[in-house]
Amino acid sequence: MEQVHAWHSFGGVQRVWSHPSAALDCQMEFALYEPPQAAHSNEALPLLIFLSGLTCRWNNFVEKAGSQRLAAQLGCYVLVPDTSPRGDKVADCPDEYDLGQGASFYLDATQKPWQSHYQMQSYISEELFGIIERALPGIDLNRVGILGHSMGGHGALVTALRHPKRFKSVSALAPISNPMNCPWGQKAFKNYLGPDEKEWQSWDASKLLAANGWQGDILIDQGSADQFYLDGQLLPESLQEAAKLSQTTLRLRIHEGYDHSYYFVASFLDDHFKFHYRHFI
Amino acid sequence: MEQVHAWHSFGGVQRVWSHPSAALDCQMEFALYEPPQAAHSNEALPLLIFLSGLTCRWNNFVEKAGSQRLAAQLGCYVLVPDTSPRGDKVADCPDEYDLGQGASFYLDATQKPWQSHYQMQSYISEELFGIIERALPGIDLNRVGILGHSMGGHGALVTALRHPKRFKSVSALAPISNPMNCPWGQKAFKNYLGPDEKEWQSWDASKLLAANGWQGDILIDQGSADQFYLDGQLLPESLQEAAKLSQTTLRLRIHEGYDHSYYFVASFLDDHFKFHYRHFI
Repeated sequence: MEQVHAWHSFGGVQRVWSHPSAALDCQMEFALYEPPQAAHSNEALPLLIFLSGLTCRWNNFVEKAGSQRLAAQLGCYVLVPDTSPRGDKVADCPDEYDLGQGASFYLDATQKPWQSHYQMQSYISEELFGIIERALPGIDLNRVGILGHSMGGHGALVTALRHPKRFKSVSALAPISNPMNCPWGQKAFKNYLGPDEKEWQSWDASKLLAANGWQGDILIDQGSADQFYLDGQLLPESLQEAAKLSQTTLRLRIHEGYDHSYYFVASFLDDHFKFHYRHFI
Repeated sequence: MEQVHAWHSFGGVQRVWSHPSAALDCQMEFALYEPPQAAHSNEALPLLIFLSGLTCRWNNFVEKAGSQRLAAQLGCYVLVPDTSPRGDKVADCPDEYDLGQGASFYLDATQKPWQSHYQMQSYISEELFGIIERALPGIDLNRVGILGHSMGGHGALVTALRHPKRFKSVSALAPISNPMNCPWGQKAFKNYLGPDEKEWQSWDASKLLAANGWQGDILIDQGSADQFYLDGQLLPESLQEAAKLSQTTLRLRIHEGYDHSYYFVASFLDDHFKFHYRHFI
């Protein structure tokens, strides 16, 4: 693991690490914010994992969301992985922003040519935990929350619902909530998982939530003027319905006038961090 | 004046306006954050003007500094101009980041080929005030503060010191504090103002502060690991010396480990907004 950036920020340090990934069979970067408390505390500190949306790398969230201020205030680490495997050897669809590099949908692909590198679910839920355990002893792996935006909101929900023991809490901002029933999700699932829709169900947050429920409450924020919401790509109401079926407490907040951008993410991130933090204490 | 962007943000609206500038003889954009109070208040609200550094446009600050949260909390408008005139007809030095478009140094040029468009001081201190008076009645022009980063810190200091009646308060983050005595400033001043160093003095914050003082106190933040500070481009100690000479209260804070980036700006912007706000009430 090699440090590629380090910036002092709000009393802590925003670092970026590069490392070879076994699950993805390529070199990967992730951003990690170390709050100021990390330098002075003997106690391991909680971790929030943020998954980003289509086309993003770690920098979109790290530069635009104002996360460091919040993390410094609460004393949380914040880890931001990339959105897919990367590199010349990794299958890609360079003309399409919603398939290939930058668009992994955080699942473990079973289909050619994707399955050799696109194992993001294993990377997030297994390999990264191993790396933290070995290299980052300041992080308390018993207090981990996961959240994300758009495709990363889908990723956060699915990862938590598939690995409930790993995560104390889950939330999402404008998540792709029911990918089986939206164009983005159908395109990705068909390519990465094949045409059999039965295989898709265990990667669909609404299906998973309806079937298994969730151990805590869930917070979802959505802007009312989000074009992808209006176009039916996000479908948070399906998630709400699934929560009812499984008797999970899910709070869906619709914010008048907000779009899909990082202006929306930044505006409500504070509430998400505090939501997660309540599950850590 | 035409709106080119509008994003809901922290209960207010982050807008970007495009307009023809008479002073600069070209089309210009500026960003303006309207705090949530603007929608509900009959009282005009105070304004902060933020000037950005070399190579920036409005988006660097607007996307990366976390300013909307602070402005929403305090109830301030925040206006972010571009860093120079723009366009195909505007003189430029495309291979040099510190001269031409993106590098106006916020002065009124007297030399060819720059003098026909590079009148940024008149644009900031006169034309923008006229535009606000005509088109933005929600802004209280009796409560205006100015601040900036790097070249924009120089711009904020010089603009305030040259127009003390316009501004209630001034502060800067890692400003070019004594441009006559640093390579960036010498190159810009020679090109924009000509070789006579006497002409440079009225565009140098340290010279102006030593000669005229300032009506209030001044806040300056500087990172100790800022490579431009270490290279002698910023020279905040000259400003400190000038403050002593003119019996102005200037607080220079050196922040251990911080560099010149927006991670530094974001970390201390809260203090600057609050500093200005104290002068508005």
